[in-house]
Amino acid sequence: MSVAKEFEAANANYVASFTKGDLQLPPQRKVAVVACMDARLDPARALGLEEGDAHVIRNAGGRASDALRSVIISQQLLGTREIVIVHHTNCGMLTFTEDVIRDKIRTDLHQNTDHIAFLPFRDLKQSVRDDIQILKDSPLVLDVPITGYVYEVETGKIVQVGENQ
Amino acid sequence: MSVAKEFEAANANYVASFTKGDLQLPPQRKVAVVACMDARLDPARALGLEEGDAHVIRNAGGRASDALRSVIISQQLLGTREIVIVHHTNCGMLTFTEDVIRDKIRTDLHQNTDHIAFLPFRDLKQSVRDDIQILKDSPLVLDVPITGYVYEVETGKIVQVGENQ
Repeated sequence: MSVAKEFEAANANYVASFTKGDLQLPPQRKVAVVACMDARLDPARALGLEEGDAHVIRNAGGRASDALRSVIISQQLLGTREIVIVHHTNCGMLTFTEDVIRDKIRTDLHQNTDHIAFLPFRDLKQSVRDDIQILKDSPLVLDVPITGYVYEVETGKIVQVGENQ
Repeated sequence: MSVAKEFEAANANYVASFTKGDLQLPPQRKVAVVACMDARLDPARALGLEEGDAHVIRNAGGRASDALRSVIISQQLLGTREIVIVHHTNCGMLTFTEDVIRDKIRTDLHQNTDHIAFLPFRDLKQSVRDDIQILKDSPLVLDVPITGYVYEVETGKIVQVGENQ
């Protein structure tokens, strides 16, 4: 069975007890979370988010540059006025370099990906600080509070590593 | 109080009952979900995901082209072999055009954003079909099952609108 079919079965249970049909489009808590796509991180459970609360933007590494289009839309059209960045321990982005993934794709898929920045990093805390700075420096991002965290996959805890309150 | 501080308080509760410290890096169910960042959509609750199950990539609209870097990393380095796309009713991406957001940013922020594709859409179901096709057609994406859904924010239900099993 495909995972998609399993999702449909799980969704039937969600629908059966669903009570959130009247929520508004703009996030109620006016915050955009930028987090890694990692399977072990559930931003809603880890941060106490209910449906309707926050935009949640996720990509490999939780990188700000890759989230920029979404952050702009979140602020310009849907009124969010705070940003929270969440990277995490044991991140896959710590395990490779641009050369490693490009070489793998050249070997396995026979494709050149020199035009794609895969955005791995070597220093986890610095990656959070870098991403705060990218958003702070962008003239396309409003001057709003930006807080950065490392989520510990071992403990479930978020540890603050950068701040621009 | 900043929302970040509220997140820290909520996280303390999460940590207190946390039991998932031994999960592996690769997603256990070998699936990558590409979904909209919308606040009303909680992919974990709506699809029955537990920590460790799936990569969850989210951006404005749940657009595949903007998720490509993450999908490639998910497949090439972390072994996912299925993709599920989730767009949703009442999406903000249905409410503007490239010209509208570019004009707003030019007026409000005095910045030119002609170099950014904001990726709004006019037809919700077609946006899902388009994004499946983008991934199917990319030589950088493996030939894996891709299933597309529209999540109904009014009911909590996912309705399949495209498939490539």
